[in-house]
Amino acid sequence: MGMIGGGEGAFIGEVHRLAARIAGNIDLVAGALSSTVEKSMRSGHALGIDPDRIYPDYKTMLSVESALPEEDRIDIVSIVTPNFLHYPQASTALDKGFHVICDKPLTSNLADAEKLLSEVKKNQSKFAVTYTYTGYPLVQEVREMIWSGELGIPRKVIVEYLQGWLSEPIETEGQKQAVWRSDPEKSGIGGALGDIGVHAANLVETMLGKKMESVSAQLNRIVSGRKLDDDGQVMFKMENDMMGHLNFSQVAFGEENNLNIRIYGDKASIEWHQMNPNQLLIKYQGKPTRTVTTGFSASTESAGALTRTPGGHPEGYLEAFANIYQNFANDIISSKNGKEGNFIYPRLEEGVQGMRFMQAAVNSDQNQHSWTKIS
Amino acid sequence: MGMIGGGEGAFIGEVHRLAARIAGNIDLVAGALSSTVEKSMRSGHALGIDPDRIYPDYKTMLSVESALPEEDRIDIVSIVTPNFLHYPQASTALDKGFHVICDKPLTSNLADAEKLLSEVKKNQSKFAVTYTYTGYPLVQEVREMIWSGELGIPRKVIVEYLQGWLSEPIETEGQKQAVWRSDPEKSGIGGALGDIGVHAANLVETMLGKKMESVSAQLNRIVSGRKLDDDGQVMFKMENDMMGHLNFSQVAFGEENNLNIRIYGDKASIEWHQMNPNQLLIKYQGKPTRTVTTGFSASTESAGALTRTPGGHPEGYLEAFANIYQNFANDIISSKNGKEGNFIYPRLEEGVQGMRFMQAAVNSDQNQHSWTKIS
Amino acid sequence: MGMIGGGEGAFIGEVHRLAARIAGNIDLVAGALSSTVEKSMRSGHALGIDPDRIYPDYKTMLSVESALPEEDRIDIVSIVTPNFLHYPQASTALDKGFHVICDKPLTSNLADAEKLLSEVKKNQSKFAVTYTYTGYPLVQEVREMIWSGELGIPRKVIVEYLQGWLSEPIETEGQKQAVWRSDPEKSGIGGALGDIGVHAANLVETMLGKKMESVSAQLNRIVSGRKLDDDGQVMFKMENDMMGHLNFSQVAFGEENNLNIRIYGDKASIEWHQMNPNQLLIKYQGKPTRTVTTGFSASTESAGALTRTPGGHPEGYLEAFANIYQNFANDIISSKNGKEGNFIYPRLEEGVQGMRFMQAAVNSDQNQHSWTKIS
Amino acid sequence: MGMIGGGEGAFIGEVHRLAARIAGNIDLVAGALSSTVEKSMRSGHALGIDPDRIYPDYKTMLSVESALPEEDRIDIVSIVTPNFLHYPQASTALDKGFHVICDKPLTSNLADAEKLLSEVKKNQSKFAVTYTYTGYPLVQEVREMIWSGELGIPRKVIVEYLQGWLSEPIETEGQKQAVWRSDPEKSGIGGALGDIGVHAANLVETMLGKKMESVSAQLNRIVSGRKLDDDGQVMFKMENDMMGHLNFSQVAFGEENNLNIRIYGDKASIEWHQMNPNQLLIKYQGKPTRTVTTGFSASTESAGALTRTPGGHPEGYLEAFANIYQNFANDIISSKNGKEGNFIYPRLEEGVQGMRFMQAAVNSDQNQHSWTKIS
Repeated sequence: MGMIGGGEGAFIGEVHRLAARIAGNIDLVAGALSSTVEKSMRSGHALGIDPDRIYPDYKTMLSVESALPEEDRIDIVSIVTPNFLHYPQASTALDKGFHVICDKPLTSNLADAEKLLSEVKKNQSKFAVTYTYTGYPLVQEVREMIWSGELGIPRKVIVEYLQGWLSEPIETEGQKQAVWRSDPEKSGIGGALGDIGVHAANLVETMLGKKMESVSAQLNRIVSGRKLDDDGQVMFKMENDMMGHLNFSQVAFGEENNLNIRIYGDKASIEWHQMNPNQLLIKYQGKPTRTVTTGFSASTESAGALTRTPGGHPEGYLEAFANIYQNFANDIISSKNGKEGNFIYPRLEEGVQGMRFMQAAVNSDQNQHSWTKIS
Repeated sequence: MGMIGGGEGAFIGEVHRLAARIAGNIDLVAGALSSTVEKSMRSGHALGIDPDRIYPDYKTMLSVESALPEEDRIDIVSIVTPNFLHYPQASTALDKGFHVICDKPLTSNLADAEKLLSEVKKNQSKFAVTYTYTGYPLVQEVREMIWSGELGIPRKVIVEYLQGWLSEPIETEGQKQAVWRSDPEKSGIGGALGDIGVHAANLVETMLGKKMESVSAQLNRIVSGRKLDDDGQVMFKMENDMMGHLNFSQVAFGEENNLNIRIYGDKASIEWHQMNPNQLLIKYQGKPTRTVTTGFSASTESAGALTRTPGGHPEGYLEAFANIYQNFANDIISSKNGKEGNFIYPRLEEGVQGMRFMQAAVNSDQNQHSWTKIS
Repeated sequence: MGMIGGGEGAFIGEVHRLAARIAGNIDLVAGALSSTVEKSMRSGHALGIDPDRIYPDYKTMLSVESALPEEDRIDIVSIVTPNFLHYPQASTALDKGFHVICDKPLTSNLADAEKLLSEVKKNQSKFAVTYTYTGYPLVQEVREMIWSGELGIPRKVIVEYLQGWLSEPIETEGQKQAVWRSDPEKSGIGGALGDIGVHAANLVETMLGKKMESVSAQLNRIVSGRKLDDDGQVMFKMENDMMGHLNFSQVAFGEENNLNIRIYGDKASIEWHQMNPNQLLIKYQGKPTRTVTTGFSASTESAGALTRTPGGHPEGYLEAFANIYQNFANDIISSKNGKEGNFIYPRLEEGVQGMRFMQAAVNSDQNQHSWTKIS
Repeated sequence: MGMIGGGEGAFIGEVHRLAARIAGNIDLVAGALSSTVEKSMRSGHALGIDPDRIYPDYKTMLSVESALPEEDRIDIVSIVTPNFLHYPQASTALDKGFHVICDKPLTSNLADAEKLLSEVKKNQSKFAVTYTYTGYPLVQEVREMIWSGELGIPRKVIVEYLQGWLSEPIETEGQKQAVWRSDPEKSGIGGALGDIGVHAANLVETMLGKKMESVSAQLNRIVSGRKLDDDGQVMFKMENDMMGHLNFSQVAFGEENNLNIRIYGDKASIEWHQMNPNQLLIKYQGKPTRTVTTGFSASTESAGALTRTPGGHPEGYLEAFANIYQNFANDIISSKNGKEGNFIYPRLEEGVQGMRFMQAAVNSDQNQHSWTKIS
């Protein structure tokens, strides 16, 4: 694997690398880790990458690597740069025949996302989008439960993603993560919407196995001076007419990374909190609530396949992230061996759908919160 | 006190009586407990009411009692009948000079509510509306904290009231509570909206000390055949431009009586759950969350005044209800003694505001969920 | 009912009165509320007791009342004085033919307790001991579950009762509750052991339907200057050879009233916390934990009979206390009517057993913590 | 690093490898992974170890590797075999000059442990014992808080380690983990005591920075036929006279891996649960409880150094394990560079102390639970 971005001072790049190490079936052997050549070299050196494969920029990396013999060159390009760079980097990587694993949101605007969709079809490349939270075993447990009808007909969904780290205008003080996220040039059409809202929307669609159809959105710029939303809420309708609500914020003072979801069916309901990820509540009317736990009472094959330790040995965010890397790599390995398997990880289509969701929400908000189709 | 309604088979009448007994400063001495004379007599007898003061109907009770010498007659009329009866009963009671404590929603339509407002002004009567949940000590703790600025400027509020007991069409099987609540003739303009949504709206306004200004509502009739909403959600804007969201349901399979609220300020945030009422979370960005508990670390005078036992001896719903009765009775006693005090309980104005909220929500829903003023 | 003790400044007396009011089948009509005559009069007046039945001392009350015609006199004497007064007061009340409800621990020493046991047998009196916590619906749910074999063979029990209010020597500053509790003359052989340890022991025996057989105790006087234990732990063996552990403290800094119990069987296990009393966990090996809640998914008749409101409307300490009063009064009423029913409340025998437990623990501690029979 | 044990079907070996990968500063390059040569080869191959460095047995590995040039040979030997093999393997590894990281309990008897202590002193080797739980950031937060006096004088400690996986005699059905753990020949003097009790004891000593001085233990063989304890409890006294209690079980039906600890001081108290490891409660008398969380409100340098992600991105068991590997490797690297740093990980001395604790507990139990010195 070769990585684009993720050099000194980056947050998500190190998370991707930890995930790949835990996965164990993928090695970081090349990198263009920073837009600054020196920083890129320093970062690559610190990571123990062969100096010959620390590249000054992503174009060089992709050209040189693609010219290497197949057995020597990287298979996968991991893209961990700010949003506006995802498209040119992913596009070039696809063009050179690499598989791509890209952070979310997929791109900075919907048009770029749609282009990737057509470009990926031209070649054999596989494409993963790191909607991290779908890598948790209990998210897959819910997906399988709903698919098999254990919840009956879903009637209502409530999803929230609340953080507080942008409660103050820290981008004006140069905080690196905040600077690019609050800049429309780099972040794209969504602020908190793209940074976290899109995770929540993907979680809903993953669990339900259905798409959102339309939204009424209300986006806020609560900290004054912000050009992009830092808070908002979205009422949405699913394909099957079920109604839902998505609440998100990065100015929810005192919240850490509070992603949670409740789905109410007519036979059972579920509740899951990312910050307590090894526990899933299943509720019944007039009967005891059941608490399912990872590695102990989770009962689906999907959950079992994503679990590394016995119950009570908590697994977390890095293991969930690793599950995406591991399945993505297994899919590639399996394909090479001429076998097609059912590997669960978020695909390019889900990345594109995320951009469609964002575009519809932005349009709705600008059009007096009117109900707007996702398309 | 004389009670109208609350005879055999009723739920909330017994709760009112328990509340009055816990309060300890108010006695049930008369009643017109059922629309059926025999049932009324039987119920009154079972409660140990003097047979002379068990009345066949509310009009008789109000006439006879008002003709008694002042020291012998009841002071307070407690109304615990289905919504559509609140107006005629309260109106008559006011006309005869009684103080009134009435269940919520105040009436079955806004016009009746407005009439009560003008009627009460004509005499010296006091009027309480049993928005029960404001009787909890920690609700008053939050109100006082916000008033004194401890949360800074409130930025976002999320309130939910989720129940599951109407997940099936139990009104078709004659379940008494469900039958009248799902009948627009008896319940009025709102179903779940009036039964529980209005509690949630009142909780928001009580804690914040501000009124809701406008709403965009989306009401659902999820169980087929229902004429009134059994589920819905409301985006709302407060007087101070703060945005909020209210989610309510009586078909949230597996939920008991899950009323909860979170208010995010720019200095601190709070989270409170009615089902765990003796615990209040106060959150800070990057600092430890504080858990305040009733009778132990609650620090406001308001909370202290509503607490009967030391920390760790859980108080609950009945004690919260009793706090409303107790303060209402103390207000009356104090007035009689020529003293005006600051007694905290929900007043008629809040009952009327609840009806305005409901009417605006219904209008918004019928008008493509458009933003609608509360007035 | 006539009450002995519980005048101004008392804590538990007011709790008993609230409990009786909630119970609804018992009225406070007489009292000897304080050892000071004036205080007794003032307290009785504040409670609205007929001045003729406010007595200067308990002996007068018991004499005068017993001389009244049966239909006029009190049935029940409620004893809410410091421990050393329980015996003479209960003994006199029994002698005059009254039923007695007495706070715990039953007496200040085992000999007095044994005497009461023989005295009560001489007459028809009923005798309740207010081990409050057995009045919680879910405690009775567990008792019935264990009795019916749902947990299989119990293997291990862990019970804790932790408070922190005596962390400082507040008895030296005149805190009324602390003063008598830390004085062996008034409290008797146990400090925290008698105040809370005995509750925990009773909870174990109630749930399991078995008695403790022997103990190895280790009692501590953590705050220097204390003559009685303020902390301790007891290893115990039940009749059926099952081992358990009881940990108690009144110097556990920051604990409110943390009584909790876990019982491990070979088919299921339970966990219950008094501070969250409407929730019971039932655990299974490799299967989802079930959370049973009061009024919603509690399934035993015992629990249902002790519940006043539907699920999600929290009931608490006062309602649990009221259940003991209510059942005790119902037992007396039923007996008067010539019917014997199965009324669940803690009896004199359990009060005596509590004293035996305390004596054995004290003996063990003084004898190098050796294993000591309870007898 | 070369690993001894941990081949196919092993549990803890894979955990050690994942930990080393997360740590990132240590590579698995050699192994004698099974007592069966074929299995060892197959396991090594699956892990991608150079075939030349997959050894048939540990003695060969240690001989061959020690003969390699310093820059080529392994530095560290990781021992993940059943307890009875720890001593001979560690002893040989030390003799050949390797650094050793060994699973717990250190050995199968105290004598072997003491021998290691003298052997390690003869050379420059570093020795880590994988008391995993001390690798959690919040465990180190507590250690630093206590050291700096934030809790005041510790008065009472309660520690529990409860599991249920040995509730049935699964060792008779050949479950690999159960078979050797229940066999005194392989496990040594303790069953559950050595498997989990010793973790709990180490946690107490780590947090308090003090040693246990004496114990009164009561060990049980609850599942019939067991030769070693599967359950027990230990009352203990610390060097500073503070009393504590340790409860452990592997037959606590329905418990997963419930290690938890509470320490009560005279200024503050703490509570931590391994299954919810990113949350630490700090309790104060009459003041709000504070919840400290990893990466968000944890404030000590020790905790920060062990945290990889921002608050709300849960880290778990594998990351805690990785912290031990990482610090151990950093210590070695630092030493090589001639620098001595303060690297926090459990040392050989703590492994020996664990064996002393076990021996004292076994002696106490066999001697009528009498109080027994740890020495």
